Amino acid sequence: MEQPSGTVARLLITCPDQPGIISAVSTFLYHHNANITDLDQHSTENRPGTFFLRLEFQTPGLDCSLEALESNFRSRVASKYDMDWTLTFAHEKKRMAVLVSRHDHALMELLWRVQRGDLSAEIPMVISNHDDLRAEVERFGIEFHHVPVDAQNKDAAFERMLELMDGKVDVIVLARYMQILPPAFVSRHPGRIINIHHSFLPAFVGANPYQQAWDRGVKLIGATSHYVTDDLDQGPIIEQNVQRVSHRHSAQELKALGQDVERSVLLRAVRWHLEDRIIIDGNKTVVFVK
Amino acid sequence: MEQPSGTVARLLITCPDQPGIISAVSTFLYHHNANITDLDQHSTENRPGTFFLRLEFQTPGLDCSLEALESNFRSRVASKYDMDWTLTFAHEKKRMAVLVSRHDHALMELLWRVQRGDLSAEIPMVISNHDDLRAEVERFGIEFHHVPVDAQNKDAAFERMLELMDGKVDVIVLARYMQILPPAFVSRHPGRIINIHHSFLPAFVGANPYQQAWDRGVKLIGATSHYVTDDLDQGPIIEQNVQRVSHRHSAQELKALGQDVERSVLLRAVRWHLEDRIIIDGNKTVVFVK
Amino acid sequence: MEQPSGTVARLLITCPDQPGIISAVSTFLYHHNANITDLDQHSTENRPGTFFLRLEFQTPGLDCSLEALESNFRSRVASKYDMDWTLTFAHEKKRMAVLVSRHDHALMELLWRVQRGDLSAEIPMVISNHDDLRAEVERFGIEFHHVPVDAQNKDAAFERMLELMDGKVDVIVLARYMQILPPAFVSRHPGRIINIHHSFLPAFVGANPYQQAWDRGVKLIGATSHYVTDDLDQGPIIEQNVQRVSHRHSAQELKALGQDVERSVLLRAVRWHLEDRIIIDGNKTVVFVK
Amino acid sequence: MEQPSGTVARLLITCPDQPGIISAVSTFLYHHNANITDLDQHSTENRPGTFFLRLEFQTPGLDCSLEALESNFRSRVASKYDMDWTLTFAHEKKRMAVLVSRHDHALMELLWRVQRGDLSAEIPMVISNHDDLRAEVERFGIEFHHVPVDAQNKDAAFERMLELMDGKVDVIVLARYMQILPPAFVSRHPGRIINIHHSFLPAFVGANPYQQAWDRGVKLIGATSHYVTDDLDQGPIIEQNVQRVSHRHSAQELKALGQDVERSVLLRAVRWHLEDRIIIDGNKTVVFVK
Repeated sequence: MEQPSGTVARLLITCPDQPGIISAVSTFLYHHNANITDLDQHSTENRPGTFFLRLEFQTPGLDCSLEALESNFRSRVASKYDMDWTLTFAHEKKRMAVLVSRHDHALMELLWRVQRGDLSAEIPMVISNHDDLRAEVERFGIEFHHVPVDAQNKDAAFERMLELMDGKVDVIVLARYMQILPPAFVSRHPGRIINIHHSFLPAFVGANPYQQAWDRGVKLIGATSHYVTDDLDQGPIIEQNVQRVSHRHSAQELKALGQDVERSVLLRAVRWHLEDRIIIDGNKTVVFVK
Repeated sequence: MEQPSGTVARLLITCPDQPGIISAVSTFLYHHNANITDLDQHSTENRPGTFFLRLEFQTPGLDCSLEALESNFRSRVASKYDMDWTLTFAHEKKRMAVLVSRHDHALMELLWRVQRGDLSAEIPMVISNHDDLRAEVERFGIEFHHVPVDAQNKDAAFERMLELMDGKVDVIVLARYMQILPPAFVSRHPGRIINIHHSFLPAFVGANPYQQAWDRGVKLIGATSHYVTDDLDQGPIIEQNVQRVSHRHSAQELKALGQDVERSVLLRAVRWHLEDRIIIDGNKTVVFVK
Repeated sequence: MEQPSGTVARLLITCPDQPGIISAVSTFLYHHNANITDLDQHSTENRPGTFFLRLEFQTPGLDCSLEALESNFRSRVASKYDMDWTLTFAHEKKRMAVLVSRHDHALMELLWRVQRGDLSAEIPMVISNHDDLRAEVERFGIEFHHVPVDAQNKDAAFERMLELMDGKVDVIVLARYMQILPPAFVSRHPGRIINIHHSFLPAFVGANPYQQAWDRGVKLIGATSHYVTDDLDQGPIIEQNVQRVSHRHSAQELKALGQDVERSVLLRAVRWHLEDRIIIDGNKTVVFVK
Repeated sequence: MEQPSGTVARLLITCPDQPGIISAVSTFLYHHNANITDLDQHSTENRPGTFFLRLEFQTPGLDCSLEALESNFRSRVASKYDMDWTLTFAHEKKRMAVLVSRHDHALMELLWRVQRGDLSAEIPMVISNHDDLRAEVERFGIEFHHVPVDAQNKDAAFERMLELMDGKVDVIVLARYMQILPPAFVSRHPGRIINIHHSFLPAFVGANPYQQAWDRGVKLIGATSHYVTDDLDQGPIIEQNVQRVSHRHSAQELKALGQDVERSVLLRAVRWHLEDRIIIDGNKTVVFVK
């Protein structure tokens, strides 16, 4: 059910599984006159299990302020069930910084989607370790920061990037950013850095995955979007897709075909993050897809 | 969350949308100590909207009999919200009759899946207007009835089939059954007859869709599974899929490729029906896919 | 096998099938020291059949000029086998006019691909019946012509468009151009006008196919790229693809999802045309895909 | 172009690339009155390159015996270009042994396809290290050999299997055969053993790939068919495909979904081998797909 986005709230919940959670949450919202329009639930199989819930509700009829709703939920429901939870409002667009190196395909897709309103976000800045894409970015009216990174200045460079983004971003997207993020950087934005890896993970980790794929003679190439953790290429996978190739394609052509997959896979992952459809569950994701 | 199937109940609900339904249903189940393990919900966009719900719950801890639960739900919840609803138990396998003409591919897939426990159903009988597939069917230990149909005996033939199935079947699958069902037959099993049509509906209705597809030079062929209504090829679509083809394929080859699509599309539709994942909404379906 | 594009020639042949054609063509090229790097062949099943051939060859070692090669081929091979044929050189980029109305998604993809060298074409102009997309187009440094079309001026408008393109374009792409082309326009560019239709033809011809698809409750939506003929939506299909949808998607969401399919399907069709991979065979296409 | 299979011959050629090969081959066939109905060609990019060719031709009009044709081709064409080549006739069905352990899904698909004429092969025997599937196999009228394999008797067991197949099989299909073949076995059937691996190689080599995939939280699972070499899971890949999964699927469900992918991927690989569409190129395959 589509609603005016200004009136949509989203609740994401993770907690130990036990009977009565849905009843407690839905009854709480009903009593505050919040109309649930979408509800998706998942519980893990292990015992004791973990319970995951995403729901969307309408706020116009609320019998209290959003703040009061949040405060009441915390005290009356969340604490009782030991919940990790977030409550967001669709009208508060997330602020998304994009980090990029030289390949523009994934970046352009994001800028273009945001510009035409296809992706509900604000882009306060693009940061790159190269200056090549400045004009492309600035013509969208978006700030571009060139922060070179080399072996000598690596810590300082990432410190500089953290300063640039300080208090200004809710999510960071690596749109083919070819530097490895230091732990100090990652720990400042836990669960909020999305990367696109140019292979079907866990196949072909490391450098030059398209050449590796060509050397191995695979019949499908792929791309993987995942949250960044300190373990390179090992973070929770959000989305993957593949593209059929054949013996006729050179390694260079795999790269070109793969860029289209990267572009669409990253777009889906970013969209789901922006719409609060993803809960991180250890090294996996629960994705409540429409 | 997978559970011993003997303890799983499924509730399908359709009713006019209004606030509080999820709260009412989930609280009812909680109070009877039924643990919800899966919940999926949908509301239509139009106003007043229609509310659809599927939920699975565990029955071992119930504080009453299944019959009492059903009776209580009717009087305390369903009537209040004007619900159309069904409550089923996974351990009660649906009885599925299969109607077929001469093509065996879809039939064999169903028999094979049921035999190996991949599909939770019983097959009390297969009925065909030809005798060709008798041996194939009987070697699975399944009754085979040959009921010829021609212009002269059509009404009598379908009356005979209704008698054969009377009280013995919960769902009828047309696995490439090439006779048009008369209204009197369809009306006896409303929303319980599943057909596989050998084209990507609504393209290529009528006879010989693969030849039509070849003549038109399409680049994808498809198959459609739908519930049967009195409007030929117009019933609610359950599932569709396609297969890429090229100028190199003859009409005959389209037919062979298409049979693989038919087989897998029908299997998915039947599986969803058996798992109570489908609600018919006018001429459409709501399918709560895993 | 990838080659410097400056040295690649492509030969497309259609002729009545008979033994010896491949031998004749390949021997001719060999004797002129042209090295065949790719060859793809197809013959129709009917009798007498039609023979289709696409081959790529290298020109650096040629023992004569390109003009002499062409002239010799005509007199010594093509006339003997009654061939329809075209010989093109990859370094001569095709000039592509794009016609568009208000939707920018397909247009932007084409402009962006040409700009970054992903698509080997020149775009001498974009023509629209609205002025909305002028800025978008002009920032790529491409001429934009606004040619309004209404019931009164239709003939004159299309005449004006023909004049604008006269002698300047090799192929015309309708990137969601929402006016029906008059026969006088189509006949001036036979087999050189590519359209993207926003449905999986032949399903949902006519207006508002996404609404039609939503009304029918299909589980896959699609897009179709085809050459334009005087029969609306009936021209030879070049490429099609689909996207899975569900009961959760509104007609408006089908439209948004469909635009991504339109974009990628049109891109493939245009790419294949530009690379001389398509031969029109009556109301079908032979597409020699890599 | 479909032809009566009794009259179709297929020529597969691998040789060092040089100008004139297609001319030489096609002219040779033309002079013997063999009509080429399908030709597909590929050359590798490296220098000096390798040339691969598959062609189908009609034999009814031949001016000599098949033996003479073969002998003439060897002396007049193949030796000049230093060709590896095979000439096969579609009416000579390949004899295919199937090795299987306990999972029946891939085996049943092959038996069923051969029985109904969908797959052009003879199956002289099925060999298993378990006796479980004997009845399933024998009801197709096919010999079943139970050859147990354990750590003690491994060499003897595979020796026994070689004896059983000696002179009776052209290709060996491992339809989920869970024993590692010893080098002495592999070397007796080079390029003639096809395996289905239950993961998207090179991801998840080794044991229990579905559990590995579940642990890693991938969003697509896959299967890979490849020729067996002495390097476990490293042989030339023939075909791969994937299936979308989500957080809702248990490891056990990944396995069930994966079996459908295994079944269809193996079927395609086997079909292509039987139709002489595959040339092994080092550790890769060239697959001339229809």
